[in-house]
Amino acid sequence: MPELFRVLPVEAARARLREHVRPLGAVEQVTLDQALGRVLAADVVSPVDLPAFARSTMDGYAVRATDTYGATEALPAYLTVIGEVPMGRPPTLRLRPGEAALVHTGGMLPPGADAVVMLEHTHPLDARTIEVTRPVAVGENVIPPGEDVARGQVLLRKGTWLRPQELGALVGVGITQVMVARRPRVALISTGDEVVPPEVEPAPGQIRDINSTTLAALTLEWGGLPLPRGIVPDDAAALAAAARAALAEADVLVVSAGSSVSTRDMTAAVLGSLGKPGLLVHGVSMHPGKPTILAVADGTPVFGLPGNPVSAMVAFDLFVAPALAWLMGAAERRRPVVRARLAANVPSHPGEEDYVQVRLEGRAGETWAVPVFGKSNLITTMVRADGVLRVPLDSGGLYEGTEVEVALYTHWMRREA
Amino acid sequence: MPELFRVLPVEAARARLREHVRPLGAVEQVTLDQALGRVLAADVVSPVDLPAFARSTMDGYAVRATDTYGATEALPAYLTVIGEVPMGRPPTLRLRPGEAALVHTGGMLPPGADAVVMLEHTHPLDARTIEVTRPVAVGENVIPPGEDVARGQVLLRKGTWLRPQELGALVGVGITQVMVARRPRVALISTGDEVVPPEVEPAPGQIRDINSTTLAALTLEWGGLPLPRGIVPDDAAALAAAARAALAEADVLVVSAGSSVSTRDMTAAVLGSLGKPGLLVHGVSMHPGKPTILAVADGTPVFGLPGNPVSAMVAFDLFVAPALAWLMGAAERRRPVVRARLAANVPSHPGEEDYVQVRLEGRAGETWAVPVFGKSNLITTMVRADGVLRVPLDSGGLYEGTEVEVALYTHWMRREA
Repeated sequence: MPELFRVLPVEAARARLREHVRPLGAVEQVTLDQALGRVLAADVVSPVDLPAFARSTMDGYAVRATDTYGATEALPAYLTVIGEVPMGRPPTLRLRPGEAALVHTGGMLPPGADAVVMLEHTHPLDARTIEVTRPVAVGENVIPPGEDVARGQVLLRKGTWLRPQELGALVGVGITQVMVARRPRVALISTGDEVVPPEVEPAPGQIRDINSTTLAALTLEWGGLPLPRGIVPDDAAALAAAARAALAEADVLVVSAGSSVSTRDMTAAVLGSLGKPGLLVHGVSMHPGKPTILAVADGTPVFGLPGNPVSAMVAFDLFVAPALAWLMGAAERRRPVVRARLAANVPSHPGEEDYVQVRLEGRAGETWAVPVFGKSNLITTMVRADGVLRVPLDSGGLYEGTEVEVALYTHWMRREA
Repeated sequence: MPELFRVLPVEAARARLREHVRPLGAVEQVTLDQALGRVLAADVVSPVDLPAFARSTMDGYAVRATDTYGATEALPAYLTVIGEVPMGRPPTLRLRPGEAALVHTGGMLPPGADAVVMLEHTHPLDARTIEVTRPVAVGENVIPPGEDVARGQVLLRKGTWLRPQELGALVGVGITQVMVARRPRVALISTGDEVVPPEVEPAPGQIRDINSTTLAALTLEWGGLPLPRGIVPDDAAALAAAARAALAEADVLVVSAGSSVSTRDMTAAVLGSLGKPGLLVHGVSMHPGKPTILAVADGTPVFGLPGNPVSAMVAFDLFVAPALAWLMGAAERRRPVVRARLAANVPSHPGEEDYVQVRLEGRAGETWAVPVFGKSNLITTMVRADGVLRVPLDSGGLYEGTEVEVALYTHWMRREA
């Protein structure tokens, strides 16, 4: 098929990939201290009511609500205090009409009580008697059993990304281990006769391999497990051998390759030959990132990203990242998006979606997006960027002052112990 | 000092804490595969020019720009092709006037050349001659040495959070290990006679310890290293002993305690007695989270958070999180904030800043913030929330339709290998 038919807009390219990617279905059990940022592999049903008993939400007196009806400052209700509810133990006392018991925040309501009067709405008369100066309704200042989570209720759905609060809810109902999707293993191959490992001093004409590091970091951020597989020369047989070896141990293969026409065509031919259905997309109408290649080899997503580090990162976000979520059966994640006003005119490449690196600046209470221009796609343009701005296909560019949406390269990330 | 003088608004409380927290100054060297999300402990100066040599940004011909001046489709310039620049090796050829050399994207400019003509603007005439149909300026389609990073230039500043692109820039200049701030060790103590460990079946009146799990996860998200130190009963001597033991091995102490008045006062007395200057803040005018205690013990920040899991998480974000950044000498991180329209009236507690959990919903192209209401601060309200909305002090609440800012509980987090 001629290349022409394989060059697609971003959304169409992603949709074509989507058709061919199925959840891995591989799961593992982890304890909660290992579960942050993982994806639930099955619905979690609560085995208990939370709370398990009626709890007071205030410091005050457990009462029968009917005993307080009509109480005012002028005409208070008088109740007999029969004791105090201890924390952490069931109350041994039982309330009869006209009685009250001191209870602390989080304390268990004693039998017979159905509400709590706040301490502020009572006055002690003597050691055994209080005045209540405001009425309470049944259930007031009380959390009934099961109010937070009811026994048998689906607490968390399959596909949920686990945040601190989800872990808290699991602990609350006594679940300390969960089944999560295994993290997709992402094999990373850099290609290029000119590319040398980071620790090697490049000779004239050579450059260090940046992509193995940046794409491994992005893989971690998006929930995958990077498997760096080194550098392969610009040679079809060598690339095919490295790719097949990587496919044997990975769930995803990402090759970053030079952007010269001959390298692109060689890379596409190899990546398309690794399994069925083969090549899906050969070129995406975007800038940077046009030489992006999407393929599937017998169920495994295969990506050919441009060799330029900025182009590779932009393309990773758009194609590899969503594939990782699909493989885990997870809700797709997007970068947080903020609105900003554009601080300069942004020209566009006709017929391509432009992805422009921007810095965010506060000016007079507004957020402005300042394009980080550079001669080419230099890695330092991304170092200076807080996020990326999409200029729609055929928009003809964007004018200064336009309100735009910026996807954040947030520093918001987790650290494991 | 009476409690009254220690109850402060959120900003004032944070400012008071800020005065007493100094960077730890502890550093460690890590390889780049361990550096994602860490904070640089020193400026990084580039030891080299990046690129080290003039590189072509296009497939085309390396030329002397002067040889192309005035070239058009009708009147092309004719150049003699003297060879091809190999990738990864220095060119052995040298351009003389009237000559050109084939060069690939990323290839090194041969001596004598000062620009690149794109392939599209040339036509081969015979095996040794091309027509050039457009002029190029000196430097066109070329990245000169040091354009990305110049030797001796500060590439990254001390205090920078390392994202994938910062790691890429480091690799690009051959730096594979960096000095980063040691992650602050955060000791976590839960208190309460009613609190039992997650794996224990609670007896009537008891509840499971949620805070040790949620606060450990938040500690990871904000760059610290959690040290869970278990559950201590509501007893001043026991808490003091546990707190002193924790201080001996931690950089931060976080105690979550019951919110009843007696527990709060006991906790404040103990946390204020651990070292100088002692208690800074006893109560913050916010809801939830009012019983928050801030103290410093001989340089170590000490936090008393409310026992309620939601209150504890809200207070952690506002006080513990920034302290972790200060201890690392890092730029303060905030949650990403998005604008949304409020989907319901939100009442406020007079004299307090309210923090309201909200769900985000797209409706007709707009983002709406839907408050997650619940009887009290149930952990499931946070499970249903995408973010949190601040209702300013004394605003009297917010009306439906108001444009508000929501700080995101983003799922955006990193995973380590």
